[in-house]
Amino acid sequence: MHDRSEAIHRLKIVEGHIRGIQKMLEEDAYCIDVIRQIQAVQSSLNKVSTLLLEQHLNSCVITAVQGEDPKERERVLKEISDVFEAATRV
Amino acid sequence: MHDRSEAIHRLKIVEGHIRGIQKMLEEDAYCIDVIRQIQAVQSSLNKVSTLLLEQHLNSCVITAVQGEDPKERERVLKEISDVFEAATRV
Amino acid sequence: MHDRSEAIHRLKIVEGHIRGIQKMLEEDAYCIDVIRQIQAVQSSLNKVSTLLLEQHLNSCVITAVQGEDPKERERVLKEISDVFEAATRV
Amino acid sequence: MHDRSEAIHRLKIVEGHIRGIQKMLEEDAYCIDVIRQIQAVQSSLNKVSTLLLEQHLNSCVITAVQGEDPKERERVLKEISDVFEAATRV
Repeated sequence: MHDRSEAIHRLKIVEGHIRGIQKMLEEDAYCIDVIRQIQAVQSSLNKVSTLLLEQHLNSCVITAVQGEDPKERERVLKEISDVFEAATRV
Repeated sequence: MHDRSEAIHRLKIVEGHIRGIQKMLEEDAYCIDVIRQIQAVQSSLNKVSTLLLEQHLNSCVITAVQGEDPKERERVLKEISDVFEAATRV
Repeated sequence: MHDRSEAIHRLKIVEGHIRGIQKMLEEDAYCIDVIRQIQAVQSSLNKVSTLLLEQHLNSCVITAVQGEDPKERERVLKEISDVFEAATRV
Repeated sequence: MHDRSEAIHRLKIVEGHIRGIQKMLEEDAYCIDVIRQIQAVQSSLNKVSTLLLEQHLNSCVITAVQGEDPKERERVLKEISDVFEAATRV
């Protein structure tokens, strides 16, 4: 329904980044530098989540909210506040 | 449009909690215990944000998405992904 | 042992901020604006926690690590990783 | 200096998880399910960071704090509060 190539592309970069961090650990890099790289990965992952949420809002959410089924609308809106709540915890 | 007494009630509790933390600091409490209390406050604030988002989704967002104005719809949905993105950073 | 007036001062500002947010809710402010103010408070609280941790590291942690008691040293260092872990979740 | 195999092992699992998420996207999985998987990865990464911090505190930090060089001690303790501050933002 919407273009996912951007998110996939970013996750491939994250995957390479994770492999790089494994290598840092194998080569006995300084702990703090490794932690900083992990924090950089988390920041990239936050961006992917936001991108996906944006696309979700502009497709499924619009469809559900404009649709006839009140249960479906409720379900879809509940999911948004659920991932928001989870985001404030991770 | 919707009931805000629950959010106000929770913020009053948070306010009392913040005052309690000030008192801990004045009475020279152990730093780590103070940090833990601040983390408890943040957890309460996350719950208030989630509650407000939930109410917002079930009122303004439904109105905007079902409305006639595509710009307004776009604006309202963009705000959701913006606060989500900010939530992953605070 | 160390100056806590800075942290207390910041928490007083946070307390005022929280009261301001209650007022916004009473005056029926826009949900998203309220959520953004809560996120600003969260950001201020992160700074207070970091300030307190900094002071703790430069006082209690140094004392414990340089001290004779291995159990006490272990306990103090464990607390640091505990609040770090909690910080990644709030 | 300390065992890094546990952290490397966990990052290999994270790497597999990231590849799984790419596949979900390619197979057009539901956005919210993908976001939830990304949040699970973030949670795993938090655990790796905490593990590394723990090891760092029990090796380099002890050495620096017990050492003769006040600048080095200051530097090492500053790094701890820096990664803590960053953790509250990612």
